[in-house]
Amino acid sequence: MIIIGEKINGSIPKTGAAIAAKDEEYIRQLARMQTEAGADYIDCCASVNEGELEVMEWLINIVKEESDLPICIDSPDPQVCVDAMKFCDGRVGIINSVSGEGNKIDVVFPAIADTKWGCVALLSDDTGIPKTADDRIKVFEAIMERAKEYGIAPNRLYIDPLVETLGANPESMLVFNECCERIKEAYPTIHITSGLSNISFGLPGRKFINMPFLVLAMNAGMDSAIMDPANRDMNGVLHGAEALLGEDEYCLDYIEAYRDNLFGPLNRD
Amino acid sequence: MIIIGEKINGSIPKTGAAIAAKDEEYIRQLARMQTEAGADYIDCCASVNEGELEVMEWLINIVKEESDLPICIDSPDPQVCVDAMKFCDGRVGIINSVSGEGNKIDVVFPAIADTKWGCVALLSDDTGIPKTADDRIKVFEAIMERAKEYGIAPNRLYIDPLVETLGANPESMLVFNECCERIKEAYPTIHITSGLSNISFGLPGRKFINMPFLVLAMNAGMDSAIMDPANRDMNGVLHGAEALLGEDEYCLDYIEAYRDNLFGPLNRD
Repeated sequence: MIIIGEKINGSIPKTGAAIAAKDEEYIRQLARMQTEAGADYIDCCASVNEGELEVMEWLINIVKEESDLPICIDSPDPQVCVDAMKFCDGRVGIINSVSGEGNKIDVVFPAIADTKWGCVALLSDDTGIPKTADDRIKVFEAIMERAKEYGIAPNRLYIDPLVETLGANPESMLVFNECCERIKEAYPTIHITSGLSNISFGLPGRKFINMPFLVLAMNAGMDSAIMDPANRDMNGVLHGAEALLGEDEYCLDYIEAYRDNLFGPLNRD
Repeated sequence: MIIIGEKINGSIPKTGAAIAAKDEEYIRQLARMQTEAGADYIDCCASVNEGELEVMEWLINIVKEESDLPICIDSPDPQVCVDAMKFCDGRVGIINSVSGEGNKIDVVFPAIADTKWGCVALLSDDTGIPKTADDRIKVFEAIMERAKEYGIAPNRLYIDPLVETLGANPESMLVFNECCERIKEAYPTIHITSGLSNISFGLPGRKFINMPFLVLAMNAGMDSAIMDPANRDMNGVLHGAEALLGEDEYCLDYIEAYRDNLFGPLNRD
């Protein structure tokens, strides 16, 4: 599993407050903590109304000092994503994200065409999130057409099939799973990613929806997650599911992660 | 999901000690606790070397006084299972278990043929637990032949495909899943059951194997579990997975179970 650490995001109240207060140490600590917890990429999302590119530069510079990990540049504005690539120096990261909406692809794909950068692509378009798997796959196919045009190989793409909250749509997981299976069948080397908590929005005891969501999505082909890598319960379930799904022979990674205290009881005697 | 409460089992050290000491109150409390936690059946397993039938009668009589639930008569000795049916009065329960081994089916199937009793059937035979799904399905087919002979409908059978511990066999879950899918395809009304903790034997942080095991098994068609119904984490994951798999529209059961305090934080303010 490819873990994109989600904590440096201005839409999280504490992180937003740290950004507003230019609290460098707080951001530094989030970068360090996610690196130690085993993240593969550090997401940076400013989530500010003005001066987004400057905040992005500030965030990325702190992460670069604190961690060797590549950066996932996260903005709803595709031009900010593209402009922020230069702050990453040589580190090949991920743009988060394009979709079938507006001019996002027109801005991002040319900028990453001749690089090795990855890109998250959401299966929504100008009409919003399509209800059915068929309609999401249509958006997917249109995105893949454009990727081919720019010579972006499938293994550089992180497709997010999108989940609606389960309380509003009982078919939410089933549609997501069907998308995963059809996407992986068409492009076996492509990546599939998702946030892990949208599914449980508005429900009580959310982790008891989020944990089985992760397991079922992995079973359907999801090989990446945008998550808090220091969430011990999700980490444990993730490693357990990898072992069960035959991706961790003799549970060696599982046992190592347990020994590294990434999940399980905090205090061990 | 059909929950078979596993706590009244002499092979669990505390329960074994209570049986040895004839501690009626302890057994009574296990029956009550499992009933309140939402079990559908109460398993009774004496696990003694001598006088098994007498201990079984004692256990069943306590459960009958304390709970309205039907009983799952659990013994490796098929004659004990059959002889204990009379202690259950009118309550239609489950025999736990037969398999392809020895004379178990010859003893149990005639005794339940003209009743409505259910029966757990393990996919092992005199050679042990077959390694491959193909070989377990052969045992399954032989059992179904015998069931047909005695007019026992598939919906009275609880097939346990058996799991090897994941630390010893990396394919354990994959074989289990394949069995589930093939069994459900052949007999859509049949039940599939399993204990939830064998899979993690010998591994640390066992619940992080057991929770995703439950989710993946449910996804493959398992509709029953032999478990501690008061295990809050397993309960939460079970209800979450049911909702995700489209078996609990608008999460109504999930929300009710949460409100009934069957999972989630114990202390709520």
